[in-house]
Amino acid sequence: MNVVVRGRTQPCRTVAFDRAANAVRLIEQRLLPHAFKIVATRTFRETAAAIRDMIVRGAPAIAATAAYGLAQGALAFRGSDRKKFSRHVEMVYRALKAARPTAVDPVNAMNRVRAAMRAGRTVAEHQSLALAAAEAFANESVTHCAAIGRHGAKLIRNGMRILTHCNAGWLACVNIGTATAPLYAAQAQGKKFHVYCDETRPRSQGATLTAWELAQQGISHQVIADSAAGHLMQRGEIDLVIVGSDRTLGRTGEVANKIGTYSRAVLAKRHGIPFYVAIPFSTIDWKLKRGLDIPIEERDESEVLGAWGAISAPHSALRTPQSRRRIYVRVANPTSHARNPGFDVTPPELITGIITPAGIFKARELWRERHRLGFID
Amino acid sequence: MNVVVRGRTQPCRTVAFDRAANAVRLIEQRLLPHAFKIVATRTFRETAAAIRDMIVRGAPAIAATAAYGLAQGALAFRGSDRKKFSRHVEMVYRALKAARPTAVDPVNAMNRVRAAMRAGRTVAEHQSLALAAAEAFANESVTHCAAIGRHGAKLIRNGMRILTHCNAGWLACVNIGTATAPLYAAQAQGKKFHVYCDETRPRSQGATLTAWELAQQGISHQVIADSAAGHLMQRGEIDLVIVGSDRTLGRTGEVANKIGTYSRAVLAKRHGIPFYVAIPFSTIDWKLKRGLDIPIEERDESEVLGAWGAISAPHSALRTPQSRRRIYVRVANPTSHARNPGFDVTPPELITGIITPAGIFKARELWRERHRLGFID
Repeated sequence: MNVVVRGRTQPCRTVAFDRAANAVRLIEQRLLPHAFKIVATRTFRETAAAIRDMIVRGAPAIAATAAYGLAQGALAFRGSDRKKFSRHVEMVYRALKAARPTAVDPVNAMNRVRAAMRAGRTVAEHQSLALAAAEAFANESVTHCAAIGRHGAKLIRNGMRILTHCNAGWLACVNIGTATAPLYAAQAQGKKFHVYCDETRPRSQGATLTAWELAQQGISHQVIADSAAGHLMQRGEIDLVIVGSDRTLGRTGEVANKIGTYSRAVLAKRHGIPFYVAIPFSTIDWKLKRGLDIPIEERDESEVLGAWGAISAPHSALRTPQSRRRIYVRVANPTSHARNPGFDVTPPELITGIITPAGIFKARELWRERHRLGFID
Repeated sequence: MNVVVRGRTQPCRTVAFDRAANAVRLIEQRLLPHAFKIVATRTFRETAAAIRDMIVRGAPAIAATAAYGLAQGALAFRGSDRKKFSRHVEMVYRALKAARPTAVDPVNAMNRVRAAMRAGRTVAEHQSLALAAAEAFANESVTHCAAIGRHGAKLIRNGMRILTHCNAGWLACVNIGTATAPLYAAQAQGKKFHVYCDETRPRSQGATLTAWELAQQGISHQVIADSAAGHLMQRGEIDLVIVGSDRTLGRTGEVANKIGTYSRAVLAKRHGIPFYVAIPFSTIDWKLKRGLDIPIEERDESEVLGAWGAISAPHSALRTPQSRRRIYVRVANPTSHARNPGFDVTPPELITGIITPAGIFKARELWRERHRLGFID
């Protein structure tokens, strides 16, 4: 997508590869939305650290980063001994895998790169196949998001007011995003609409990342408190809801997504507002048989008990170069504790449709359509 | 209620009068939850400033403060000239009224004090009648909250998990509170239960004030993100919801309350969870004919775009005496804007019952019961 850097608009991907420098170029997402900076990781170890330290986040984005990291590690090998090269690649693979041990997408992405390398005979061939496979993976991710956008844009009419939750935007992907893809595609078609971004406490990805993305792309939007969505629906001020998903059960059509998604689906149903979920194929879990079995991560209570932000004008004495980085303030009563479930599960009867790269489906149709949706027996 | 000051538990009211010093004693609520301090306003002008600057907040609490402020102003008059005294009292009345010009409760409270003064003949008699009327007003407010507690406590059984939203606690009243009254009464009866406090963005009164109150009273509680309530209901982890109200329509049973109340009522209905609203009589609006006519205040966007909190340990270099006061951090993207509706309206069909000082009623029964509920033709 486009970002404004020092007043000039430049095209930008979340993750890209610099062949000449053998470096992965990433947006330093921890500085957003208060500062924009591209960083280059010059070794696979730096790339692994960028994944671990959340310079890059979002399943599709870290998958592409790991794929590039594996190619980067392979390309750094000097010599022609295939056995030594093999051991080296294995070490790179393990380092990148360990960077985010519970994530499955980076592992799947690296497996594809490793499988593609097998067609080569020399070390040099392996190396160039690795890079080609990583590029293909990243490009396919973009192509899939563009297809989600193409299908989803049909739902958007001029003048609509659209609610989204959390950030399933281009920052979480290689480009374009999932829940945001229909917005960008509709904008490209010249449609005019307004987006309400739920702030998405406790981590505020809606207020920070989605709002930043929409501002960069010049899409009309406003942030709202999570509690305001129901009121706006009741007053007829929301026409469409589009959210992303962390895991969608192919067998039942249940959707796990950021905490608060379920509440919005219940409210949308009450008010007859279409509720769509945009997902890449990689998000579909074909194994689990019921939503109750999806593990709901209980995250650290400090997220609920406080907030991260930048110090603003009235406290300008505290504005140091370091304060461009966000600081944590304790909001809640100091002697109280919190519960912090990170995700919730929305049942299929509340979902109008699932927007995939292969088209829009009813949530309960996924299993019947499984072969079109990439399910492999 | 009780507050812990330097390790010792002391009984405390939100608003009290110190006859010897002719001063109103208030909790400096802007320091909560990070510090507890009682301040004394020694003149009616200081009392008006305390209302204006939100040292004291909550309709019943500022009503009692204004009543005491009027008595305080009257008592400060030196001399026996009744005409001069009358003009003086009028000036005090106007100063206190101007402190929070849109609030109706302080005006009603001061009107009661002024009406009571008429029975006196000398300035000294007027003065002592004013103080007696202010004390009676504050005490009646406490008696009514205690009655809400008595009725509401019957709904609470051992082991229950109770959700509350915002702060309709003793800090907003003279003592005991409205939505919190059933909790304190049930605790006094030896019942054991757990309270989930919605943090209540954007002003976080649940995370700050309600959590502070419950911690002071030793009631088991946890703060949750506003988005988590629906998930907890879905998993069967909430048994009862009790909220307060800013305005309840006597003719229709519609309830205006802090933004997010409506969403919780919709979710509670879906999951068959009892949803109660606790209100003092003064909250009932007998005139308005439909909820859509309740003005919904659109508050400043800075509330949604940031958060107020105390700087915590990792930034201890920034800990100055001033930092005991909370600072504002900008959370959202700096170039984005927000919408910030402060209240929403819940229809009667979502409300299991209205807890009043006169008992628990169906929301649609209020009009039929209007004479028991203080309605004057």
